[in-house]
Amino acid sequence: MNDIICTVDVVLMTLKDSRLHVALLKRDHAPFAGLPALPGGYIRAAEDGDTQAAAARMLREKTGIDSPYLEQLATFSGRERDPRGWSLSVAYYALVPHELIERAGHPEVTLLPVDKVGELPFDHAHIVAAAVQRVRNKSSYSSLPVYLCGDSFTLPQLQAVYEAILGEPINKVSFRRKMEELDMVEPVAGAMETGKAHRPAQLYRLRECYSRNLSLTDRALNAKG
Amino acid sequence: MNDIICTVDVVLMTLKDSRLHVALLKRDHAPFAGLPALPGGYIRAAEDGDTQAAAARMLREKTGIDSPYLEQLATFSGRERDPRGWSLSVAYYALVPHELIERAGHPEVTLLPVDKVGELPFDHAHIVAAAVQRVRNKSSYSSLPVYLCGDSFTLPQLQAVYEAILGEPINKVSFRRKMEELDMVEPVAGAMETGKAHRPAQLYRLRECYSRNLSLTDRALNAKG
Repeated sequence: MNDIICTVDVVLMTLKDSRLHVALLKRDHAPFAGLPALPGGYIRAAEDGDTQAAAARMLREKTGIDSPYLEQLATFSGRERDPRGWSLSVAYYALVPHELIERAGHPEVTLLPVDKVGELPFDHAHIVAAAVQRVRNKSSYSSLPVYLCGDSFTLPQLQAVYEAILGEPINKVSFRRKMEELDMVEPVAGAMETGKAHRPAQLYRLRECYSRNLSLTDRALNAKG
Repeated sequence: MNDIICTVDVVLMTLKDSRLHVALLKRDHAPFAGLPALPGGYIRAAEDGDTQAAAARMLREKTGIDSPYLEQLATFSGRERDPRGWSLSVAYYALVPHELIERAGHPEVTLLPVDKVGELPFDHAHIVAAAVQRVRNKSSYSSLPVYLCGDSFTLPQLQAVYEAILGEPINKVSFRRKMEELDMVEPVAGAMETGKAHRPAQLYRLRECYSRNLSLTDRALNAKG
């Protein structure tokens, strides 16, 4: 039909030590065999319903992870990016709690801080940079960062996650107001965080309706003026 | 190499009678021969540097238009969208002044209001809807609508373009403040709009540095609260 190499790549991100990390996988075949790169591969027309399904399959096969949130980032293409020939990669990104990656325990997956990836095969460093920019922009007016949290969390924990992504402190009152506006979390009945030195805090969880959809606001959390 | 049909499609939009319109082109071959659809076609690996170049070529060949601003929208894919088989279309969108389409004068191009496209071949109605949503969202915090204006325009004319896209009136003072913040237009030295009943108004133009890049602000023009 044509001579275009059609692939998907997934930028799987998580928060570790309060820093955004990306999951890289050692490539087991040429080109760039042995080098860490984004999990990805050929779209299989016989198997994948669409590129989103191909990305979900890739993530599952290569990292053992089913991400609740997987969004298309952009398509990267051209003659130069793959030594095998003219190629296009439909790139997706996913955010998951760190525990999920640890639990999947895939031996070939390594986590690198997003600002320390350096050079990567193909244009993967460029794809990672685009994904990080998307996550930062989108986090400022949506529920996106909550996918980095576990099943339940306190509001101060959630605020710390937003601050880690946005890279700046957020006023606690503005944060609480924004969370009310986004209306994306609900208290877990009777569940308090315990075992800490300070007073137990109410635990929250993502509301069911937002388990795979973002809640959005029209004014950025960190908007100036 | 594979059995995936790789195409690009372009959602070319303009403002006509203060309403956003999309350019459709009568298809000259199967499938859907004779029906109006988005200008698009196969990516040619031998000819196109990347999908962006393919989209620019398609627009030029099929409508005679070189758009200064052409942005990737998203990739639409799957087994069902094209009767010929598993396909993907990397969709782009472009905004141009109405005069540019009239000047190109392509006989097969028709303009339809974006909310009146009805059913279209493939998933083109869905692609148009996604493009319109992108333009509306992006216009609220960027210089995007200026691509709908001609080479020079008055501030009231520019405000009317923003209002047409956003679908709501904008306070004049907020608008002027936002334009200052975006810093995207400059007065055309000595040029005033004339021939109107009211007092001549200063003409402005897009600053050179934004001729192909957006100026962005972090707070929406129509943000509430």
